[in-house]
Amino acid sequence: MRTHYCGKVTAADLDQIVTLNGWVHRRRDHGGVIFIDLRDREGLVQVVCDPDRADMFKIAESVRNEFVLQMSGKVRRRPAGTENANLTSGEIEVLCHDIQILNASVTPPFQLDDDNLSETVRLANRVIDLRRPQMQKNLMLRYKVAMAFRRFLDGAGFIDIETPMLTKSTPEGARDYLVPSRVHPGQFFALPQSPQLFKQLLMVAGFDRYYQITKCFRDEDLRADRQPEFTQVDIETSFLNETEITAIMEDMIRFVFKEALAVELPSPFPRMTYAEAMRRFGSDKPDLRVTLELTEVTDAMQDVAFKVFSGPANSGGRVAAMRVPGGASLSRGEIDEYTKFVGIYGAKGLAYIKVNDVTKVNEEGLQSPIVKNLNETALRTVLERTGAQSGDLIFFGADKAKVVNDAMGALRTKLGHEKGYVTGETWRPLWVVDFPMFEYDEDDKRWTACHHPFTSPKDEHVDLLATDPGACVAKAYDLALNGWEIGGGSVRIHRADVQAKVFEALNIGAEEQQVKFGFLLDALKYGAPPHGGLAFGLDRVVTMMAGAESIRDVIAFPKTQRAQCLLTDAPGEVDEKQLRELHIRLRQKVETQVEVARD
Amino acid sequence: MRTHYCGKVTAADLDQIVTLNGWVHRRRDHGGVIFIDLRDREGLVQVVCDPDRADMFKIAESVRNEFVLQMSGKVRRRPAGTENANLTSGEIEVLCHDIQILNASVTPPFQLDDDNLSETVRLANRVIDLRRPQMQKNLMLRYKVAMAFRRFLDGAGFIDIETPMLTKSTPEGARDYLVPSRVHPGQFFALPQSPQLFKQLLMVAGFDRYYQITKCFRDEDLRADRQPEFTQVDIETSFLNETEITAIMEDMIRFVFKEALAVELPSPFPRMTYAEAMRRFGSDKPDLRVTLELTEVTDAMQDVAFKVFSGPANSGGRVAAMRVPGGASLSRGEIDEYTKFVGIYGAKGLAYIKVNDVTKVNEEGLQSPIVKNLNETALRTVLERTGAQSGDLIFFGADKAKVVNDAMGALRTKLGHEKGYVTGETWRPLWVVDFPMFEYDEDDKRWTACHHPFTSPKDEHVDLLATDPGACVAKAYDLALNGWEIGGGSVRIHRADVQAKVFEALNIGAEEQQVKFGFLLDALKYGAPPHGGLAFGLDRVVTMMAGAESIRDVIAFPKTQRAQCLLTDAPGEVDEKQLRELHIRLRQKVETQVEVARD
Repeated sequence: MRTHYCGKVTAADLDQIVTLNGWVHRRRDHGGVIFIDLRDREGLVQVVCDPDRADMFKIAESVRNEFVLQMSGKVRRRPAGTENANLTSGEIEVLCHDIQILNASVTPPFQLDDDNLSETVRLANRVIDLRRPQMQKNLMLRYKVAMAFRRFLDGAGFIDIETPMLTKSTPEGARDYLVPSRVHPGQFFALPQSPQLFKQLLMVAGFDRYYQITKCFRDEDLRADRQPEFTQVDIETSFLNETEITAIMEDMIRFVFKEALAVELPSPFPRMTYAEAMRRFGSDKPDLRVTLELTEVTDAMQDVAFKVFSGPANSGGRVAAMRVPGGASLSRGEIDEYTKFVGIYGAKGLAYIKVNDVTKVNEEGLQSPIVKNLNETALRTVLERTGAQSGDLIFFGADKAKVVNDAMGALRTKLGHEKGYVTGETWRPLWVVDFPMFEYDEDDKRWTACHHPFTSPKDEHVDLLATDPGACVAKAYDLALNGWEIGGGSVRIHRADVQAKVFEALNIGAEEQQVKFGFLLDALKYGAPPHGGLAFGLDRVVTMMAGAESIRDVIAFPKTQRAQCLLTDAPGEVDEKQLRELHIRLRQKVETQVEVARD
Repeated sequence: MRTHYCGKVTAADLDQIVTLNGWVHRRRDHGGVIFIDLRDREGLVQVVCDPDRADMFKIAESVRNEFVLQMSGKVRRRPAGTENANLTSGEIEVLCHDIQILNASVTPPFQLDDDNLSETVRLANRVIDLRRPQMQKNLMLRYKVAMAFRRFLDGAGFIDIETPMLTKSTPEGARDYLVPSRVHPGQFFALPQSPQLFKQLLMVAGFDRYYQITKCFRDEDLRADRQPEFTQVDIETSFLNETEITAIMEDMIRFVFKEALAVELPSPFPRMTYAEAMRRFGSDKPDLRVTLELTEVTDAMQDVAFKVFSGPANSGGRVAAMRVPGGASLSRGEIDEYTKFVGIYGAKGLAYIKVNDVTKVNEEGLQSPIVKNLNETALRTVLERTGAQSGDLIFFGADKAKVVNDAMGALRTKLGHEKGYVTGETWRPLWVVDFPMFEYDEDDKRWTACHHPFTSPKDEHVDLLATDPGACVAKAYDLALNGWEIGGGSVRIHRADVQAKVFEALNIGAEEQQVKFGFLLDALKYGAPPHGGLAFGLDRVVTMMAGAESIRDVIAFPKTQRAQCLLTDAPGEVDEKQLRELHIRLRQKVETQVEVARD
């Protein structure tokens, strides 16, 4: 039915007869001639309908936006001065010989080139929304990216093995989506939060190199960049160590960026320990395009009169300074805005010093209400360590370490981008390594796994599992890109005795271990190879690559932040018969005794 | 850590030092030397441990089956006469220099080469089961097949677009798996039975060519070749008709067989109408390797005295004959077995005639208790139409058409394979086309869709939708292979008015249409292109290609026929808190009032 995609007709096809299928993007009548911009997934082409072919012209007159047409005609050069450099087909037009209306369309709910649509309108009319050239491009890019991952992994000997969607609920981690079993009354499947345990079992089974691009599910309250179902590029390999695994993975990411965006990422990716990343950037996924850095001044603030600093400095908190070169020119209003911003992250204020004259270490040279409460030694330390110069501004964060890191880390990124403290580079990947094994949960008074409980400690830290969990460093690594975590993974525990020690550190008793993870512990006894892996968030990678605002713009049929599909109106009510077959009932339905008696 | 996969070391590597990682498949001590068959996913290699390297030898003495080793050594030719032609590495062995035990193993629950394991034992110990070379091969083949599908589709301009897993329940079709919503009390998602409607929406959105290799879900009682979750190669395209779609699809299947099995399938695939397939083979997925055929004799039996034949012949049923060349030699016992067999399909008996002398059309030449109740005209018609010769046997089916087709179709396949009435070909693909649009449901007294309600009728049959639904033929096609349906699809309805007529024929009222399929009907109004597609059952295709007995042998972690995972013990019980968050409770839990009051 078609010789070319609309968007692919070019001057190379001059004088040829082409047949096209597509949608009427725009119809213009101009000087007795009808111009139709015909659109398909590859783009637009201009079709010219002359009145000298009366039958054809009559049909052309009747078509409206979004009608589906089949057209044939001869490719000719556009008249000089009417070329459109924005289109691949912009040098040519098609002189129409024949039109057939394949389907009509009622007037669409909005114009495809309307850029001011609310997301609700877009999601409720997703089919029309998906026709917009940007959405077509985004989903084509997504496909290109996914195929690039596959091609690389295939070439490197990884094989795609499907793991179950109907699996077991593990109350660790995020909340599960549950699926009631009809055959086993009172029992439930869970949708997988990740194929973690299955991929480890595949390594124990000897498949050596596994990957899967697969849906994962978390029933959490949604943030801007989260969906109830999301897609993971999930990878695991045997017989490789941290260095070898991350080396393959960064080759893969370089390959994907080159294939999909023709972008060359640096080689190798820089590496940084978790400790250094937190110290210098307040974040385990720092945006290295931003040139601002935090400076540690906790030790210098223990003796100062200013309680806001000395308090945290003396009680295990953190005091960090951030030099903003030339920042003395920031206005009072701007500083107020940044103060409000860090409040989102729990900071109770945002202390600062304007360095008017770096040679005068007193209230004359340093403009700030807090200077009088900091002694000269402390001030000198700050100036020296930050390298501040006259005309700079220094921001301070002082609180529990987590609050300081979150607040100052976020401020660094925001201020850096807003005020141009950036390197000018487009992509800055970074491996963050040597994560701690555990973090202490102050609420539950217990250690929890930073990554997950199957992550291996450094070999030399195995003994610390029992004695000093907080000092244990994990063989874990994250890949950060421009301030986003795009992937993360670890070398896993392959020895049953080490796994048991980690469960003990996490206060998971023998019985609970057996009930929840018995099948993993069993597997580890039967010759588990050393193994490790990684998972990348495909939605997020593609969102970044597409320059999209939301992951919803790179998913064909996403859910809203209220976990609804506005197109199909899911979730929805179901028949009582369906519930009965699943041995469940709704809670509100049983509030009266009448309902109960009826059963 | 590794220079070669074990199974890939060959004579080309002679005299090289190799490093291998793998599992101890077998250890033999022979004449003071230890032989270890080391196994990885690519196969086995023989490693020889000589006592002259004492440290290494001591380790070799300590290893047991399924220990994980790293070994290095020099490749040398096996002594003449000890080569193993069954192994890729069979000409060589590795003289071990160094061994490291990477992990130990307790004694496995069974020997990997034990072929007499029950499926329960295999599934409960799936990780060990998956180490068996056959299972490794099956899953590698599955990957090869899936990648061949992807490569073909990618090359043909199809793009993979993910559709939602959490979607809307549509009570049409099979039973849905439901997922309670936490955010929307009393509402449920359903897991998709297929991406049918979403892929049609993607065509309306202009993506032109779509595919996805995706999980689908049906909560049905399981048969041997079914799983609660199964994998579909799902395809849809715009602007192509039946002939063009099936042409691309058979190119794809030929490509997949060539890539994965190095098998050349015929080109083109033969085509047959549904009507012809039922008439000649009693099946819409006939196994064309079997040479036996049914012969229509209904019209010839209307006047015979034998009520078992004349009854069905006069009341819309079917009487079919099947000639078995040389079948007069079948024993009484064999015929009894076949009679029992057709009973499974509802046949009340299995009439037959042994043709002792085809020239004598009477009880002398034709040996059978029924001959005296069939008149000579009827007998002559049977002999002529079947082409029977002396020494043949003719089986008869007479009943409602469905019973005759099911029973005689199954008998044809069974007898054909058992008694060698086969062509000798390995693969016989067949397109079955021109399916009826509807079949009449005798129980519900209404028409139901043979394929699904979105299937387009033949253009010339649109008017029959209202007047004679039973005569409507659909633009539907199935791909049969060796008696299995491996794929099926149709051209879809792209016009809202035709879709409404089909819903009317199915007795789905306007309101129900809107509630269930409103989003599809809406989409059809906004310029839906002509489109159609197909879905292949990946599990089934791979099972056939692997020559496996069950689809469970080509799925890494399958469910049992009771829809259970014996490895992880899913489904399982969940916390009361989880149920409360989902606004549901178990039925049996509310049987006492105490429980009710407690909430």
